[in-house]
Amino acid sequence: MHLTLIGIGTGNPDHLTRQAMRAMQSAGLILLPRKGESKADLADLRRAILADVAPKTPIAEFDLPVRDEGIADYTTRVNAWHDAIAKVWAQTIAQHSTDDIALLVWGDPALYDSTLRIAARLNPAPEISVIPAVTSITAMTAAHAIALNDIGAPFTVTTGRQLREGGFPAGVNTAVVMLDGETSFTTLPPEGITIYWTAYAGMENEISLSGPLADTAPKIIAARAAARAAHGWIMDIYLLRRV
Amino acid sequence: MHLTLIGIGTGNPDHLTRQAMRAMQSAGLILLPRKGESKADLADLRRAILADVAPKTPIAEFDLPVRDEGIADYTTRVNAWHDAIAKVWAQTIAQHSTDDIALLVWGDPALYDSTLRIAARLNPAPEISVIPAVTSITAMTAAHAIALNDIGAPFTVTTGRQLREGGFPAGVNTAVVMLDGETSFTTLPPEGITIYWTAYAGMENEISLSGPLADTAPKIIAARAAARAAHGWIMDIYLLRRV
Repeated sequence: MHLTLIGIGTGNPDHLTRQAMRAMQSAGLILLPRKGESKADLADLRRAILADVAPKTPIAEFDLPVRDEGIADYTTRVNAWHDAIAKVWAQTIAQHSTDDIALLVWGDPALYDSTLRIAARLNPAPEISVIPAVTSITAMTAAHAIALNDIGAPFTVTTGRQLREGGFPAGVNTAVVMLDGETSFTTLPPEGITIYWTAYAGMENEISLSGPLADTAPKIIAARAAARAAHGWIMDIYLLRRV
Repeated sequence: MHLTLIGIGTGNPDHLTRQAMRAMQSAGLILLPRKGESKADLADLRRAILADVAPKTPIAEFDLPVRDEGIADYTTRVNAWHDAIAKVWAQTIAQHSTDDIALLVWGDPALYDSTLRIAARLNPAPEISVIPAVTSITAMTAAHAIALNDIGAPFTVTTGRQLREGGFPAGVNTAVVMLDGETSFTTLPPEGITIYWTAYAGMENEISLSGPLADTAPKIIAARAAARAAHGWIMDIYLLRRV
């Protein structure tokens, strides 16, 4: 079996690459999760993209299992969930006669995404191809027209939890923070830090704010709450630069 | 004046996004550097992409200034070079009657690229739009079908020079190394490190090698030398993971 993980970018259909579009068109079957997306605006976007780009490719929808919140340990809970998803994939694939399966992945399959880890659970192991995509990281830097790195300097990509628990990453002056549901930038001493914040990066509702962290944090908190109330969900990302 | 910096991805024309293709088609004028690309295979790729995607868009070619190697200090030399490039841009733009200028940028304009810094030197300051693109980072992870991050864990993107001077980045178990002309991974104690190496990421000649650093380093050094001899240039990137 051949499994293609197609990165579709940040939710802007115009972020699709030609390679991704061709992979959708040539796949024997595309697996499409029917549930599990808390982000209502996104739920139908995969279908809309497929209807636009690859209307002839067969689609198999499946119900995404839910996490068993009765499992206390985080890693055990996530592993059990990934096992359950792999099982549903295998059952869905078994109902079709093709060996050429594809899945659409938000952003890029390499970046804070579990699809590769779920695919590794399939037995027998499929041959895997990955189609890279525009990520929310450079959709965010594009929104601000800024560079990720100072000249020749490193940067760290991290999570809200890591920032809360460990502070500003060591050894760098630039940090990109993802997966932060808790405006964790408020836990840092703000002096000397500039923040570049973008919600719904690359999408129609994109919002960006930037400035010194001390002044800008309250504006972001207010804008974030208002946007979440208006849309029912929010996904945001930000860059912190020490000057 | 409006200046659009169009990320075109890693050199694979199929990495172009729909947004990038539309930006090329709608630009009033595209500035195209005629020299300065040591990578012979790449020199004509911008032209080929434009001929394919936006054959009607006017193109203004210009000679890229060379760096003044007589300036000893690195930062001063780079700044003088960027000043010279901005001057040539301004002269080239002045010869045309449009206010709507675009430039094609390898990879993504946010990632180890000087185009944004050169654009900031224009006077009067143009309005700037950035079109994000697939970067060599996820073209490399796609080639290996690996994730960038361990679950919930941070990673650092850095340069060969930083790795040589500072060792494995602090506070992370994953480092992505770019701009390394000197196989700087050989300067690390190899125990417990896995390397994923890709040259010409995303392109026709793509080569990938991976494994424990101790065993794999000599293979990469040999493959890299052979590929550079065969093609006359090489561009590579790698991920180091501590286990």
